[in-house]
Amino acid sequence: MEITKRGGKWNMIQLYGKRRKPEEQRKGFDNSFTFDHRFLSLLMLRLHLLRLSLSPVSPPKVGNMIKPTAFASGLTRSNLCPKIRSTMATFSTASESPKLLFRQLFEKESSTYTYLLADVGHPERPALLIDPVDKTAERDLSLVNDLRLKLTYAINTHVHADHVTGTGIIKTKMPSVKSIISRASNAKADLLVKGGDRIQFGNLFLEVRPTPGHTVGCVTYVTGDGSDQPQPRMAFTGDALLIRGCGRTDFQGGSSEQLYKSVHSQIFTLPKDTLLYPAHDYKGYTVTTVEEEMQYNPRLTKDQEMFKNIMADLNLPYPKMIDKAVPANMVCGLQDLNDKHSEPLAV
Amino acid sequence: MEITKRGGKWNMIQLYGKRRKPEEQRKGFDNSFTFDHRFLSLLMLRLHLLRLSLSPVSPPKVGNMIKPTAFASGLTRSNLCPKIRSTMATFSTASESPKLLFRQLFEKESSTYTYLLADVGHPERPALLIDPVDKTAERDLSLVNDLRLKLTYAINTHVHADHVTGTGIIKTKMPSVKSIISRASNAKADLLVKGGDRIQFGNLFLEVRPTPGHTVGCVTYVTGDGSDQPQPRMAFTGDALLIRGCGRTDFQGGSSEQLYKSVHSQIFTLPKDTLLYPAHDYKGYTVTTVEEEMQYNPRLTKDQEMFKNIMADLNLPYPKMIDKAVPANMVCGLQDLNDKHSEPLAV
Repeated sequence: MEITKRGGKWNMIQLYGKRRKPEEQRKGFDNSFTFDHRFLSLLMLRLHLLRLSLSPVSPPKVGNMIKPTAFASGLTRSNLCPKIRSTMATFSTASESPKLLFRQLFEKESSTYTYLLADVGHPERPALLIDPVDKTAERDLSLVNDLRLKLTYAINTHVHADHVTGTGIIKTKMPSVKSIISRASNAKADLLVKGGDRIQFGNLFLEVRPTPGHTVGCVTYVTGDGSDQPQPRMAFTGDALLIRGCGRTDFQGGSSEQLYKSVHSQIFTLPKDTLLYPAHDYKGYTVTTVEEEMQYNPRLTKDQEMFKNIMADLNLPYPKMIDKAVPANMVCGLQDLNDKHSEPLAV
Repeated sequence: MEITKRGGKWNMIQLYGKRRKPEEQRKGFDNSFTFDHRFLSLLMLRLHLLRLSLSPVSPPKVGNMIKPTAFASGLTRSNLCPKIRSTMATFSTASESPKLLFRQLFEKESSTYTYLLADVGHPERPALLIDPVDKTAERDLSLVNDLRLKLTYAINTHVHADHVTGTGIIKTKMPSVKSIISRASNAKADLLVKGGDRIQFGNLFLEVRPTPGHTVGCVTYVTGDGSDQPQPRMAFTGDALLIRGCGRTDFQGGSSEQLYKSVHSQIFTLPKDTLLYPAHDYKGYTVTTVEEEMQYNPRLTKDQEMFKNIMADLNLPYPKMIDKAVPANMVCGLQDLNDKHSEPLAV
């Protein structure tokens, strides 16, 4: 819920004695599917105080913390469990309330979707790109620049076989950007992630879910759970789940059995209204939901045996870009990364 | 702000004694950039009652009403001015709270964006399509069917010259759907609109803004103003304003002078966070904002004289589809509509 000055009067936030300063309004681009939880947080604080007055005081439980590496720019506080985080959020300054800026971008030749996410509620406006493409990397960086974002991570869902990642070009132009890919992919990158890791950008984060089957190292990145994270949740599924389809399973350690299990255990278990954003679409769709795919996906609604048969009978041609794309993508599009040591995200 | 049961407990709405029924949660697809204003409405009612207790009672002012035609399925109540509407909304049943479902769709050959909007808070789930394309009309209808929407209108922003509209195919498959185009376009359609008209779907509506210049009859459709309409607002600009560009002005009654005035008076005057969705993009962008285009549009940030010179010097080739597309689109893609009388939206 965006709380702003409109039509000459302040709305909602004014009810609780909190008025946005004019200079705060002018600052930056606070747009594109944004959400603002200050108002919500204030109400939650009221409820929290009410609870405290009704029940004996007990220390809140703290969930497992994943320590950020020297590279990770996220605040440690935000790695606490959701309950703690939302309570703490009520004490954060207005400029630190998480607020998602989201852009979907398309590369026409390989029909690849790249996603830009940023926390524009954070003073540094930290951003990340998911699945950038070499041919459109300049466009993406231009947009990052226009929106005055600080690009922190360039992330791949897997080692793509149909295009060369834009990570290499991005790192050449912006050396501070860290590349990320899964450890299971056996590819080189600045940071390697595994299931359960969190990728923090400002006060927002992506959760890593392993979804192998299209390739051995595929992961799905899911926006965080909790009241201070975007609702509905958003999952970036790579080629594991496409809109009314899925990625092929006959190369790069693919396995139809594994893909079926991945989608059913890691994606279809998300809330039904979770927005699913794939790495590709060939029919012009841009987004789907868990509920839709559980009902209409022509492959993954079948039982496992039938799915296996469907995938075995696809008889697809040899991927025309694979011999060029995979070697480049194994080093995240940057040949000289080969000699560098990749660090895990969580140490 | 979506208010639902999550993680085993009811949130927010419970504070005000209003609990969503389980059967309400199960019903339909309540997803894709949805918003729910019941909670907001309840708070506004409280404020409204507070105001009444502090000031002398006076009858609320009612704005100009545009009567819907026999074709328009919108509720008359929703044509009242925003203040009245938001107050009345507090008395509406939960199932009638407006809730936008939004999908952006792409036709690769002509790089055209089609938009699907529906009010999934309304029991009938009424929907409309903006700028459907003949080649992808079947896809759009399939999605409408999957999402259990009732398609009411198929709308064009203008008489396109680069593709044939999907309106004809849609009306053939679903005869109850009404085609809409501007009266100024001189094209035939079931309903003709002019600046200031509202196109109602459930409790949501689009406002018509005249934006001639690319063609003589171009209009921009903007989601409604008011607390019960989507925030930030969304404007479907056709070819009047493209992302970091604009439509050509050398055919179909085009005028660079008029286009400049249209964009500056009808689009750049919208709130800065208004999301702008064009009819085309050739670089893979999907959305922009008023603020971005006012700052970065390489043509429309110039003064009018310079803009006129830029447009005069484009030296673009003759539009290759124009001789096929324009005659078809003048009858909204349905030749036999020629003999039928088109009705204005507002009578």
